[in-house]
Amino acid sequence: MDERIREHADVLVGWSARVEAGDDVVVDVAEDAHDLGVAVTEALGEIGANVVSTYGSEELLRAYLRAHDGEFEAGAHELALFENADVYLRLGGGRNTAATADVESETRQAYSSARSEIREARMDTDWVSTVHPTRSLAQQAGMSYEAYREFVYGAILRDWESLAETMAELKTILDEGREVRIVRDRPDQPATDVRMSIENRTAVNSAASVAYDSHNLPSGEVFTAPHGTDGEVFFDVPMTINARRVRNVQLTFEDGEVVDFSAEQGEDVLEGVLDTDEGASRLGELGIGMNRGIDRFTDNILFDEKMGETVHLALGRAYDANLPEGEGGNESAVHVDLITDMSEHSRIEVDGETIQRDGTFRFEDGFEAESS
Amino acid sequence: MDERIREHADVLVGWSARVEAGDDVVVDVAEDAHDLGVAVTEALGEIGANVVSTYGSEELLRAYLRAHDGEFEAGAHELALFENADVYLRLGGGRNTAATADVESETRQAYSSARSEIREARMDTDWVSTVHPTRSLAQQAGMSYEAYREFVYGAILRDWESLAETMAELKTILDEGREVRIVRDRPDQPATDVRMSIENRTAVNSAASVAYDSHNLPSGEVFTAPHGTDGEVFFDVPMTINARRVRNVQLTFEDGEVVDFSAEQGEDVLEGVLDTDEGASRLGELGIGMNRGIDRFTDNILFDEKMGETVHLALGRAYDANLPEGEGGNESAVHVDLITDMSEHSRIEVDGETIQRDGTFRFEDGFEAESS
Repeated sequence: MDERIREHADVLVGWSARVEAGDDVVVDVAEDAHDLGVAVTEALGEIGANVVSTYGSEELLRAYLRAHDGEFEAGAHELALFENADVYLRLGGGRNTAATADVESETRQAYSSARSEIREARMDTDWVSTVHPTRSLAQQAGMSYEAYREFVYGAILRDWESLAETMAELKTILDEGREVRIVRDRPDQPATDVRMSIENRTAVNSAASVAYDSHNLPSGEVFTAPHGTDGEVFFDVPMTINARRVRNVQLTFEDGEVVDFSAEQGEDVLEGVLDTDEGASRLGELGIGMNRGIDRFTDNILFDEKMGETVHLALGRAYDANLPEGEGGNESAVHVDLITDMSEHSRIEVDGETIQRDGTFRFEDGFEAESS
Repeated sequence: MDERIREHADVLVGWSARVEAGDDVVVDVAEDAHDLGVAVTEALGEIGANVVSTYGSEELLRAYLRAHDGEFEAGAHELALFENADVYLRLGGGRNTAATADVESETRQAYSSARSEIREARMDTDWVSTVHPTRSLAQQAGMSYEAYREFVYGAILRDWESLAETMAELKTILDEGREVRIVRDRPDQPATDVRMSIENRTAVNSAASVAYDSHNLPSGEVFTAPHGTDGEVFFDVPMTINARRVRNVQLTFEDGEVVDFSAEQGEDVLEGVLDTDEGASRLGELGIGMNRGIDRFTDNILFDEKMGETVHLALGRAYDANLPEGEGGNESAVHVDLITDMSEHSRIEVDGETIQRDGTFRFEDGFEAESS
């Protein structure tokens, strides 16, 4: 076995999920994530955790969803599994990223809505989502298998403690700030100028560990839960939503709600997302990508949203970690991230002060406070 | 997809497990049973059942067991999963039947013992175990992949109602009988002459359906739970126990207990089984194979024990279905079947009357009551 797979498993189980002896762990293994599954269960055996491995197959899900009449129920057995679990580790990496492309979006929404209680129970565990580099994901990224594996392990096998320290500087700025403004004026694209309140919200220093309220490996972003969003945003990084390509999305917000939308490609998919429920047309997340190990777009949200010099906004569900204790945020059955490149003609302001210009933060070398 | 895979799934879900709308079903998918998993979840979607798919990987299990210190616990999450499940479908078919060959038998036993409560919960569901024909199983059988698939579907896609009627004749004989005697005197092998009580026991007409208390697909055997076994048995059909070959086992019983044993190959494996617990040296099952679609030994217990013209005895756990209501039978963490060929120089007697000679039952054409 490639030694990097074992290192990946050790980072996942040790740094990210902080698994301890006696923990009840669910490991979800995607179709081609077998080797990572072996390394992870080995690491869990060493620790003395108790393991149930589930089979995260998109092809099984597609077959089930297409055959079903659409009146979905949450299985009591699945709910009990997650209510009794301490840790949930999702090992992504299927054989075909378009495996569920021919499932109707109404079916997906009905399935997702029926399972909200299961999802809540799963998110109450110390959950971490990661991905095993597969040929299917390499293809999605437009990369060779070897080069893609280099890329993935470059993003995952990092000095997470050091990155956490850098990200803490941005977290402090956001925690003390009241309003974020994002401005982009690339001459070849629709303009972005959007403001959102972050008052009373706590930013998460997403350092790829549950100890930081961070649930993705790789991570490397600082995110918060905005509200009262106003303005226009153009997202120039392409997305795959529900196995469909969505490109060049434009959203207009008034009082926190999407009042107008368009997309050059996949507009119907975007419409389906927005129609899921009331919360789907409000923002659940503002995230600022800071993992400079992710140096290219690979058409995989787990990596793309962490890319340095990008910002993403998510429609739908907010994370509790961003909210004041006991206070609810935006609720929805969906959480769909949209990303924009901030490396040129761009700035982020907090309470009127520029904190990032053209991808460089004010606490980094090379930052210029005023536009050149 | 090969249409036989869909037919297999339909027999499993419809005839065997009798799944209904709203049932909470766990589908365990072995490493190479993916295609059957797709067909089964499709069938379950049509019915409107709720599905959790688990990943039945021997390689994950091996990694876990070898890394663990041996002080196993039953996970509360796994117990909750099965306590809340209505149906458990095990789709066997790995990539290497020797995948766990280098796991110490003490480790296996400790793992098995720690999980007895989970096993009980799983066996309280309408569980069915089947197998997807894989290259690994074809290799184990010494057959080409194409020929093996023919063999497997020949054993599974049968007229189960008709076979159930034939098997009912043997069930009646056993239910009315008090003592079974098995005699073999092949000149080239150690003699078999063993008697066991079946008084107060109910034979199961194992017609591959939970409606018949039958939990294997394929099935095609009639089995009961003997007690008070006395005598000697030689098992000439080879076996794979815990991924190790065991051949030519000889057991001597006194008052129901194994008092002497030997094996030409794998004697240490046999010893490990017998040492598991007190019940492991007593019989839990007498089974009589009646599936004439299984016309050859393929080194897979699911098929071999159902082969026409064979008898098997299992060390360890008895099935509740054979016992009087509320009465306990032999208890053990193991259930290990040993098989002997009855096609020559052999007879089965019930209360002194020969009911099968050289593989032919007294209710079948060609039966001769007296030895020729």
